[in-house]
Amino acid sequence: MAEKSAIQSWFMSLQDEICSAIEETDKGGAFYQDVWQHHTGGGGRTRILQKGNIIEKGGVNFSAVFGAMNEEKAKALNLPKAGDFLATGVSIVMHPKNPNVPIIHMNIRYFEMEDGTYWFGGGIDLTPHYVNKEQAIFFHKTLKETCQKTHPNFYHHYKIWADDYFFLPHRQETRGVGGIFFDRLEENESKISKSKLWEFVQNVGKSFAPIYTTLMKENAKTPYGDREKHWQLLRRSRYVEFNLLYDRGTKFGIETQGRTESILMSLPPAAIWEYAYQPEPNSKEAETLNYLRKGINWCD
Amino acid sequence: MAEKSAIQSWFMSLQDEICSAIEETDKGGAFYQDVWQHHTGGGGRTRILQKGNIIEKGGVNFSAVFGAMNEEKAKALNLPKAGDFLATGVSIVMHPKNPNVPIIHMNIRYFEMEDGTYWFGGGIDLTPHYVNKEQAIFFHKTLKETCQKTHPNFYHHYKIWADDYFFLPHRQETRGVGGIFFDRLEENESKISKSKLWEFVQNVGKSFAPIYTTLMKENAKTPYGDREKHWQLLRRSRYVEFNLLYDRGTKFGIETQGRTESILMSLPPAAIWEYAYQPEPNSKEAETLNYLRKGINWCD
Repeated sequence: MAEKSAIQSWFMSLQDEICSAIEETDKGGAFYQDVWQHHTGGGGRTRILQKGNIIEKGGVNFSAVFGAMNEEKAKALNLPKAGDFLATGVSIVMHPKNPNVPIIHMNIRYFEMEDGTYWFGGGIDLTPHYVNKEQAIFFHKTLKETCQKTHPNFYHHYKIWADDYFFLPHRQETRGVGGIFFDRLEENESKISKSKLWEFVQNVGKSFAPIYTTLMKENAKTPYGDREKHWQLLRRSRYVEFNLLYDRGTKFGIETQGRTESILMSLPPAAIWEYAYQPEPNSKEAETLNYLRKGINWCD
Repeated sequence: MAEKSAIQSWFMSLQDEICSAIEETDKGGAFYQDVWQHHTGGGGRTRILQKGNIIEKGGVNFSAVFGAMNEEKAKALNLPKAGDFLATGVSIVMHPKNPNVPIIHMNIRYFEMEDGTYWFGGGIDLTPHYVNKEQAIFFHKTLKETCQKTHPNFYHHYKIWADDYFFLPHRQETRGVGGIFFDRLEENESKISKSKLWEFVQNVGKSFAPIYTTLMKENAKTPYGDREKHWQLLRRSRYVEFNLLYDRGTKFGIETQGRTESILMSLPPAAIWEYAYQPEPNSKEAETLNYLRKGINWCD
């Protein structure tokens, strides 16, 4: 099994690979890097691309934060005792310019305490401004294949978890067409070895670039006008609401005095709020809203 | 002392008066009304003005919600026992078109349990996109005069409370130039009779229209261009962050399944997020940021 330093190195190289793949596909934007330190120890490399050809604003963040966790925080995390911790991972959100290109989010992470307690967590979810059924199926099929390399139940289980997690109760809407979400994966719970779980997390990470560059290429040339741009801005406001009201990573980052600009890189370049907006019945916008619900079976 | 039905009626008439004053000053926009019911009992009148001459998006909401509060919720509110409750009040947020006109927020509310426990709460705070020192002083002076009709310490006390409440820790910024904030005012705590407290809350409510129509008139004709509009959109993103991350009313409303569109009327019509944006040193934007801190003495 990989040591924690090997896990960190792998996450860093994944960040490199994903940034290269996005730049190559975008053919215009370039990532800008900020290296930062966390107040308890460790830090990160935040990479931001703004005003590309396809990506309007996106971030690919690596971080490896360590420090001492006190009794209270350990209790809140259901951990046996206080001690030194390491939290490392890669977080991505991409907001494209063309409303026909979906927003995507991925996070994969590893957590370890000095007593050897550890877990993996993460997920990928897709938020199309306009749901394209075939592409949603392609997305879920790819995730299913990725999951099945490790365990036949993983996709089914983590797809349901994503439906529940990426949900806005106050809107009674899912954030998009879901994906997979998992947390606190450890050998004890899953009866799958740590090295198999690490392989799974790596496979999820490696699936990102092929999935998203495919969706960038397929949609970036689809024409759009004011109507589609207006709808995109409305949908982005829901993305803001999810991230600030519910997203656990955002909440945790803010509460632990993480680096604000790295945490909030997930927010869109622009968003609008119109009071009680409703799309025309039977419009393509209304059709998309119909897809924003839990329990849609995309590829089982 | 006014009965709860009289308190509700007064809040409704205040809503009428404020809407009229804003329409008269805006000379273009008109409030649209939605009447709604709450799932536990009662409901409200949400009034929204969009695309006026001066106000780009604003809401003046009245609500009077009642129902049964269980032991758990009563405990969370530090109440002696479960029982029927009434929560009523007026909430306002105005987002102007011209960046030289400030954003304003007011909320005044009354809460009562069937056993007679009650309190008043509320506040007014001003969020200029560009701080105009004289106008900030005018704003605070008016609030001070309003407070001093009831008690010589109220302004000082509630001004500090506003500085602490309308604060974004992750930005290390106040939301704007503050104002007053107060919660759980009751006779026991303040040694001021309930009818005196109600008079205070009414005075706060009555101060809103003269304050804001003055600021609308003084600034609505000040010229602005792309630079000022851009800055306004950036400042509005901080308003979104405050309301979704910290505002207690928003959080309470969402958690208790309140009417989403009435709760989120406070969000601006549009906002932008730019990674790690910093204004030019010594610019008027940088000058405004210098004012966004606690403890500025505007009129003591």
